[in-house]
Amino acid sequence: MWDEGFIAVDWGTTNRRAWRIDGDRVMGEFADDLGFTSVPAGGFPAAVAGIRARLGDLPLLMSGMVGARGGWVPAPYLPCPLDLDTLVAGLVRLEDERAFIVPGASYEEGKRADVLRGEETQFFGAVAAGLCGTDALICHPGTHNKWALLEGGRLTRFRTVMTGEMFNLLKHGSLLKAWLETEATPGAPFAEGVAQGWEGRALTADLFTVRARVLLGSLQEYEVASFVSGLLIGADLRTGLSDLPQGEVVVMGRGALTRLFSAALTQVGRPNREVDGEEAFLAGARAITERLS
Amino acid sequence: MWDEGFIAVDWGTTNRRAWRIDGDRVMGEFADDLGFTSVPAGGFPAAVAGIRARLGDLPLLMSGMVGARGGWVPAPYLPCPLDLDTLVAGLVRLEDERAFIVPGASYEEGKRADVLRGEETQFFGAVAAGLCGTDALICHPGTHNKWALLEGGRLTRFRTVMTGEMFNLLKHGSLLKAWLETEATPGAPFAEGVAQGWEGRALTADLFTVRARVLLGSLQEYEVASFVSGLLIGADLRTGLSDLPQGEVVVMGRGALTRLFSAALTQVGRPNREVDGEEAFLAGARAITERLS
Repeated sequence: MWDEGFIAVDWGTTNRRAWRIDGDRVMGEFADDLGFTSVPAGGFPAAVAGIRARLGDLPLLMSGMVGARGGWVPAPYLPCPLDLDTLVAGLVRLEDERAFIVPGASYEEGKRADVLRGEETQFFGAVAAGLCGTDALICHPGTHNKWALLEGGRLTRFRTVMTGEMFNLLKHGSLLKAWLETEATPGAPFAEGVAQGWEGRALTADLFTVRARVLLGSLQEYEVASFVSGLLIGADLRTGLSDLPQGEVVVMGRGALTRLFSAALTQVGRPNREVDGEEAFLAGARAITERLS
Repeated sequence: MWDEGFIAVDWGTTNRRAWRIDGDRVMGEFADDLGFTSVPAGGFPAAVAGIRARLGDLPLLMSGMVGARGGWVPAPYLPCPLDLDTLVAGLVRLEDERAFIVPGASYEEGKRADVLRGEETQFFGAVAAGLCGTDALICHPGTHNKWALLEGGRLTRFRTVMTGEMFNLLKHGSLLKAWLETEATPGAPFAEGVAQGWEGRALTADLFTVRARVLLGSLQEYEVASFVSGLLIGADLRTGLSDLPQGEVVVMGRGALTRLFSAALTQVGRPNREVDGEEAFLAGARAITERLS
């Protein structure tokens, strides 16, 4: 049924994006802020009907937080190591039989535990489309940055660092909030933050130091956002890179945040290149539906 | 003019507490949530008149954030090392000539910078009243936990860790917020958090692990608040104790948070004892006004 074209939805917590895919082509798309938390109880069938009204009455493949607890129908977290065939076998088919939710992935090692949803589609898509090799170290910046290791085309381990969420928490409620409205940019204050975060001192101490430095005059107010962004990303890199092997890092995503991570990786001496996250997602949706046909 | 009794105010960001002091006795007191940020521009004289209407028409000594930028009249941060006589010499006298604001303290070392306001009164008060020795390592839990080193009765260095603020940020806006309404208590989940925070891994990674562990079933929802409290306090101790010499720690404050820090210190092998923060504040106010008489 997928041969006639289908709709792929990247359905996150606070927004969603949908594409009508026909072979190699994208025939239509839209994005809005109807994330899964903004859909009322029992409202998913109507939300899906709305997507079809805009893009066509086609089969639907959904990925992301839409499969989480509190979403529509919970889709499992499949344990690592995970390959594409196992992911496809774990798809959750919905009542209308023309809509599927992609499972998430989990990783556990002792008391460490991790989960993801949505990024799996991009990771397997990047491999399928040759955007990255079957052995790759991926950094996927976002609200919850994901570091993922692919070995032989399988997702073998990954780790989440809530860098984006922490920046947002600090921006909306902290002692630094007035200074975090500025957009963070690469440059000297960002690089100084990266160096300090990479050293791995305590974040809750370093963040207060930012305020004290502004009060005492050794940091300017307009430098705070870039410095704090660097501090969080530096700590993030320390976590992600300490856990994973040497070599080139694939920075997967789009936009300003991706460029900041790329700049920070270069600063700490790790070769890296950017891969477009949307291209990877579309490739993943195609790779999954090809296995369903 | 202080011999007839005076009013001491511990005036913080979000609340304040005032005492009418007559020699060794407290003749009246009150606490409310009129912190310095809730006083409108130009409203401090009226706020002070309100305090006097409740406690008596007496000289006033104010300590804390009331002296910060955006407060009434900015009081300086006096650099460490700082002694009580220098603090008293730096008092800011207000227009009505019967009201004084206690300066804060600052510490700078390279790119590290730190400030405090209000705690200095407690530190010098504790020494003056013999609640701690002239050489002491103090841990002062709160929104911004302060680690302070006293040497020969002088405040020689200190460090702030924003443990309380981080817990509040996580409680009000993070992916963990639903689970942080529970009160944190000492016990196994707290101790596990302390151990993990003390190891000093990256907080932004460890916090996401908490969510993943709940989703995957290795941590119970009701354990999250205590675990996260332990995680933050463990990281806090690592910062504070790495920076300061061995020996007994004086935990200054009051209530549940003070007991959590004490439990965590005991867990990581540091002897400690609690000193009542209010008693220290009142002793500090007396010590300052005695030098003004």
